[in-house]
Amino acid sequence: MAEYDLYYWPTIPGRGEFARLVLEAGGADYRDVARLPESEGGGVQSMLGIVEGRGTHRIPFAPPFLIHHDPIHGEIVVAQAAAIAAYCGERLGLAPQAEADRQFARSAALTTADLVAEAHDTHHPVATSLYYEDQKPEALRRAAEFRSERLPKFLGWYEAVLANDPSGGDFLAGGALSYADLGLFQAIEGLRYAFPRRMAAIEAGFPLTLALHRRVHAAPRLAAYLASPRRIPFNEDGIFRRYPELDGD
Amino acid sequence: MAEYDLYYWPTIPGRGEFARLVLEAGGADYRDVARLPESEGGGVQSMLGIVEGRGTHRIPFAPPFLIHHDPIHGEIVVAQAAAIAAYCGERLGLAPQAEADRQFARSAALTTADLVAEAHDTHHPVATSLYYEDQKPEALRRAAEFRSERLPKFLGWYEAVLANDPSGGDFLAGGALSYADLGLFQAIEGLRYAFPRRMAAIEAGFPLTLALHRRVHAAPRLAAYLASPRRIPFNEDGIFRRYPELDGD
Repeated sequence: MAEYDLYYWPTIPGRGEFARLVLEAGGADYRDVARLPESEGGGVQSMLGIVEGRGTHRIPFAPPFLIHHDPIHGEIVVAQAAAIAAYCGERLGLAPQAEADRQFARSAALTTADLVAEAHDTHHPVATSLYYEDQKPEALRRAAEFRSERLPKFLGWYEAVLANDPSGGDFLAGGALSYADLGLFQAIEGLRYAFPRRMAAIEAGFPLTLALHRRVHAAPRLAAYLASPRRIPFNEDGIFRRYPELDGD
Repeated sequence: MAEYDLYYWPTIPGRGEFARLVLEAGGADYRDVARLPESEGGGVQSMLGIVEGRGTHRIPFAPPFLIHHDPIHGEIVVAQAAAIAAYCGERLGLAPQAEADRQFARSAALTTADLVAEAHDTHHPVATSLYYEDQKPEALRRAAEFRSERLPKFLGWYEAVLANDPSGGDFLAGGALSYADLGLFQAIEGLRYAFPRRMAAIEAGFPLTLALHRRVHAAPRLAAYLASPRRIPFNEDGIFRRYPELDGD
């Protein structure tokens, strides 16, 4: 049995990637359960069974969720991408030690989760249960506002945090790599995939943020993971989708 | 100086209320800073100054945020409503002790935050920077989907968690009142305000959830708070808005 069992949709990076990156960069002993064959207890049905209340009384609302087989505390269920990232980061040496930095990393990861949710809603502003094609006029309007208002506001916030960081601005919290940085890395990757024109037009205005993105990309364990088949490419079933009509300079 | 300084918009319950309820129910020594006069260091400008990077290098992205003057660790900045609720709850005796329950309470509070965000987006599906009147067709569509799909899905999840709870289903985590229950209480209050017809039509289907709502309402410190002028009524500038055209059976 692996120590950590991560459950997420097997064909998209999506919100699960924010957990996966921490498990990979932290060198965790983990299984990506829904990507395993059913003969090994994997598959989507095994994941959905837990969401439907089979297997644990601590029912997660939706994937991603994590079941940690903790040697001390037993089975711990953690849901919500930012909470899973924080939980794993704090156990795998990818979180600040000092309480003030520790709390700030949690707040930063949740802010990134908001950015990710807003990026998702550019293509699904009405309902996740409907196809993109059935909400395209609304999507065009929401994406325009995201590109012009929200995207620069979020990037500007990361930039301000790094510019004001007393430990030098290399990382978001505590002067060392944490799950908060991994989350920002993944958000930038996704934004560049979904909005290549807009990112090309504005990203030079956020040099500290981009330098942090490059720093995370080059981290040893992470570089190997990103080059592996375990890293799922972005695609048009996920959170970050490349629909050219939603992008613009 | 108070031990906890909460910062949020002074005229709406909004996301700040999820923090305020924990501080009130926990009997915390706190100030609701933006509601204080400027002569006492209060007002909206004092809050916005911190968001703009004056006063702390740990800059919050947006209100609500908390500054805890911790006697041991010094100044702790916590942003994001669910993170503030967890932080305060864990320090004020309103969180489970056992690690598995503690983590589940965090996941539950974040799930409630998602429900709240979706309720907000029924009236602002395109952009928070635009007036409701400028996104009304989109709002009508999103609200219909929220009422028929998302609202029952969320309420059904709380109900399933309570029905499966081995400690009896009186509370969401750990068999005692926690910040996760306070968050659910506030969400139900908001949903009843914003969608009175829809809630009247469906809420009998979620008896354990409603019983928990009544249980929280009757808690001693909370009942006094809810009857006080510190409790800000819902209104049409907040997260939960009563627009009859967005409601329906």
